[in-house]
Amino acid sequence: MTKPVRVAVTGAAGQISYSLLFRIATGDMLGQDQPIIFQLLEIPEAMGVLDGVVKELEDCSFPLLADITSGSDAEVIFGDTEIAILVGAKPRSLGMERSDLLAENAAIFSGQGKALNSSADRNVRVLVVGNPANSNALIAAMNAPDLPRSNFTAMMRLDHNRAIHQLAAKTGSHTSLIEKVAIWGNHSATQYPDLSNALVDKTPVAQLVDDNWIQRSFIPTVQQRGVAIQEARGSSSAASAASAAIDHIRTWVQGTPEGDWTSMAVATTGSYGIDTDLIASFPVECREGAYTIVEGLSFDAFSKKKIFDSISELKSERDAVRHLF
Amino acid sequence: MTKPVRVAVTGAAGQISYSLLFRIATGDMLGQDQPIIFQLLEIPEAMGVLDGVVKELEDCSFPLLADITSGSDAEVIFGDTEIAILVGAKPRSLGMERSDLLAENAAIFSGQGKALNSSADRNVRVLVVGNPANSNALIAAMNAPDLPRSNFTAMMRLDHNRAIHQLAAKTGSHTSLIEKVAIWGNHSATQYPDLSNALVDKTPVAQLVDDNWIQRSFIPTVQQRGVAIQEARGSSSAASAASAAIDHIRTWVQGTPEGDWTSMAVATTGSYGIDTDLIASFPVECREGAYTIVEGLSFDAFSKKKIFDSISELKSERDAVRHLF
Repeated sequence: MTKPVRVAVTGAAGQISYSLLFRIATGDMLGQDQPIIFQLLEIPEAMGVLDGVVKELEDCSFPLLADITSGSDAEVIFGDTEIAILVGAKPRSLGMERSDLLAENAAIFSGQGKALNSSADRNVRVLVVGNPANSNALIAAMNAPDLPRSNFTAMMRLDHNRAIHQLAAKTGSHTSLIEKVAIWGNHSATQYPDLSNALVDKTPVAQLVDDNWIQRSFIPTVQQRGVAIQEARGSSSAASAASAAIDHIRTWVQGTPEGDWTSMAVATTGSYGIDTDLIASFPVECREGAYTIVEGLSFDAFSKKKIFDSISELKSERDAVRHLF
Repeated sequence: MTKPVRVAVTGAAGQISYSLLFRIATGDMLGQDQPIIFQLLEIPEAMGVLDGVVKELEDCSFPLLADITSGSDAEVIFGDTEIAILVGAKPRSLGMERSDLLAENAAIFSGQGKALNSSADRNVRVLVVGNPANSNALIAAMNAPDLPRSNFTAMMRLDHNRAIHQLAAKTGSHTSLIEKVAIWGNHSATQYPDLSNALVDKTPVAQLVDDNWIQRSFIPTVQQRGVAIQEARGSSSAASAASAAIDHIRTWVQGTPEGDWTSMAVATTGSYGIDTDLIASFPVECREGAYTIVEGLSFDAFSKKKIFDSISELKSERDAVRHLF
């Protein structure tokens, strides 16, 4: 039997995890031949709910689910984990300042970074889903000096998938025929969903849609899609966020399709003149289990401004929590 | 491209569907090569929430999801559907009598039976998940005289999977090594989870566990598992119910493994001396897209009594709603 992969998930009793865990257990993330061991982290107050979720996972009799452990001690739960999906985060409460939100999450993610540093597998792939995801991922990475910085990523795939859907709907195409959409910057309202290189059934987007639609409809729709769903459902995107997390890890492990790329927020290394010491979204290609930032793309003035506005926001978030590095 | 299969789901804005739809769309139910069209039914009051769910489905950019329609008119939504998963049902409210619960659901499911009768594909496979599932399925079937009675089934797979897990946990085995567990009767607390023929890694259960454990621990644990999860989670089983629904349809379409069976509530045809005109759970084998009740099993007095107690309950449920046939 194939050796099981240890997958740690935090915030395991929450809504996103409730959509995520069952899909991972059925093989959607790592394939139908790869057994999984779940290592589930929650705060002590939520262990009762998590016990119910564990019972439901057991009740599915998933052939690929080899074992489940759960608890509140990150260092124990992250032991030897090869994939860590950090979903749990402090949500923004009514009247909370953004700086307080950053600070409260910074405390959580610095602790989880230290725990990963001391107990995770040395090649652990880390995906931060909990918001503010980019800064949370940066804090975790900065607190895990013994792990490669490049192993820490934040999720932009939900934005990426939303952008693909909007373009497919506009052009009367199917999402499977859309290539080379990119999301740049921060997973926030400043993100830049970029169609400069996008193809619809191999046709460049510029031949199909005009700049007015891109700037006045497409970009704000993608940026504000989470709000639209929150308003319709009465609760925030959970199943689509979980689906994007699965896509993110699967693509990282299995690779991007030939001639296409995906969007991931990864450690900046100087590409496109962007500061180092950030976790920012780029188009990336994945091969043999590793990602590389797509280099050498050129931009018009509009794109350049959009990208650097979002990078500025990331820098100010970083400066607000730098004392925790 | 393979022709998409039309899958109708009712109660599409509810919690079970929220776990179900995304897994169907990713290919868990009908395979990674089978495109899907969703036809989603909800009551008018829930169309806003359903709109949010549809947006999230779109945002996943699932390659297999060819189209989504939604609405409140069952006859329209069931048009040409080849698989109908009837999840939506009136839940039991505080202080509600069981007879009122039966009557309110009978009204819903007689209408849906009529709608299936007039507009669904003539080979539609119907799975009723909404409780009381067996009687709801019977009412739907009785109101669809132009469709084969055998196309109407109710879900026992959650109980079946729960039984497999309990036996695996007790014997220190993995669920994938358990065979020939059976659930008989009604999807209610009277169901009979039957280990008489069960095997653990090819070893008969009687060599591994004693009757005392089966009667005092195993049976009540399986029967009451839903309550245990409700108490832990603060809400009823959703993801495990959705997973069982997927298993039910997949097994029906793709078949049971050689030498094993599954449990489905199906139209009674006289097997084991059980009344006709019921939808009761039996061990069934599935081959080439059809199920057959496993015949010729013999029972001790304990098993016989358990099965007929549950059948009695089904008969009294039927008698309470017979005016709707």
